[in-house]
Amino acid sequence: MYPDSLKRLIDSFQYIPGVGRKTAERYAFAIMDLPEERLRFFQESMEDVKQKIHTCAICNNLTEEEVCYVCSDPLRNQEILCVVEDVKSLFLFERLGIYHGLYHVLNGLISPLDGINPEDIQLDKLLDRIRAGHFKEIILAFKPSVEGETTALYIKRILDGMPLTVSRIASGIPIGADMEYMDAMTLERALADRKNLE
Amino acid sequence: MYPDSLKRLIDSFQYIPGVGRKTAERYAFAIMDLPEERLRFFQESMEDVKQKIHTCAICNNLTEEEVCYVCSDPLRNQEILCVVEDVKSLFLFERLGIYHGLYHVLNGLISPLDGINPEDIQLDKLLDRIRAGHFKEIILAFKPSVEGETTALYIKRILDGMPLTVSRIASGIPIGADMEYMDAMTLERALADRKNLE
Repeated sequence: MYPDSLKRLIDSFQYIPGVGRKTAERYAFAIMDLPEERLRFFQESMEDVKQKIHTCAICNNLTEEEVCYVCSDPLRNQEILCVVEDVKSLFLFERLGIYHGLYHVLNGLISPLDGINPEDIQLDKLLDRIRAGHFKEIILAFKPSVEGETTALYIKRILDGMPLTVSRIASGIPIGADMEYMDAMTLERALADRKNLE
Repeated sequence: MYPDSLKRLIDSFQYIPGVGRKTAERYAFAIMDLPEERLRFFQESMEDVKQKIHTCAICNNLTEEEVCYVCSDPLRNQEILCVVEDVKSLFLFERLGIYHGLYHVLNGLISPLDGINPEDIQLDKLLDRIRAGHFKEIILAFKPSVEGETTALYIKRILDGMPLTVSRIASGIPIGADMEYMDAMTLERALADRKNLE
């Protein structure tokens, strides 16, 4: 019932995870209504993203240069390294502006159940970087999950004996959350990680 | 914090009504992950939709031909004309497969408050078609709203005196709906439009 080209555009939008048929239809109709120059811009930015963006040679952040803007900024604290599971975590920290050290982006987390082993997430690159650098602290900023725990413990173990602190971001009750909506694991963790009040 | 080309792609997705920054970011990341040939297909279908699709010379349905597949189908009932406010309504009827006559797509509904007058929604084209045709019934399939009412009454009036029936799709309680969730206007209409049981 749709003209062929419209059908193909609807199919295309469904390539995006989480976009179903109805949403894809709505988007395709919106594309038909776009002015020529916006459509052109849209298409070109798709092209550019594929052509120009690659991972930073040092930290795996996304960049159009050889080295990303974080790694090439001499004002960042060169002694702290925050290790994240993907660039989305990095962008999140950057957006909030709450961290001023360096990053290292892994290729996901270790997950033996999914067949993802240490060698699959480029831990070698991280290790080489830490060995060559002068870091005082490595912060592991993984989500609190089996995979996050596994990866953190693994990294902690291979860094054992090196003259640096390895830390892990805290997990517990989110600020502002209602206790009654917390799951058992979060409450258990919050209890176990309780801090003495001074 | 994002590379330029990624930023532009995120901006592009926000051209689509209803897509906010977070969703646009998610989509842009998904585009980066698309295999080369899917991205190519996506870009080409955008291009094609703009280049190839236009409105049917007879009914304003979207088509890549001069005349759409409904208007050129001799098996459709040529004596009934269903008038809709946009192609989305037409696609809805077609998807459900519940109607086998012809269509006419207006350019929206009359809405004096928004400055949309009868001449803005291409009623002339509809009228010319009805005058030149052999329709027995014109079904007005507008949504039940002030604009829908206004447009229906206006069309009814200009067709007055012609040898055809002008009807309007029914409004009332949707099948399966709970009475308690119905608004006053719907209930009022359902009451006013009650049908005698035979």
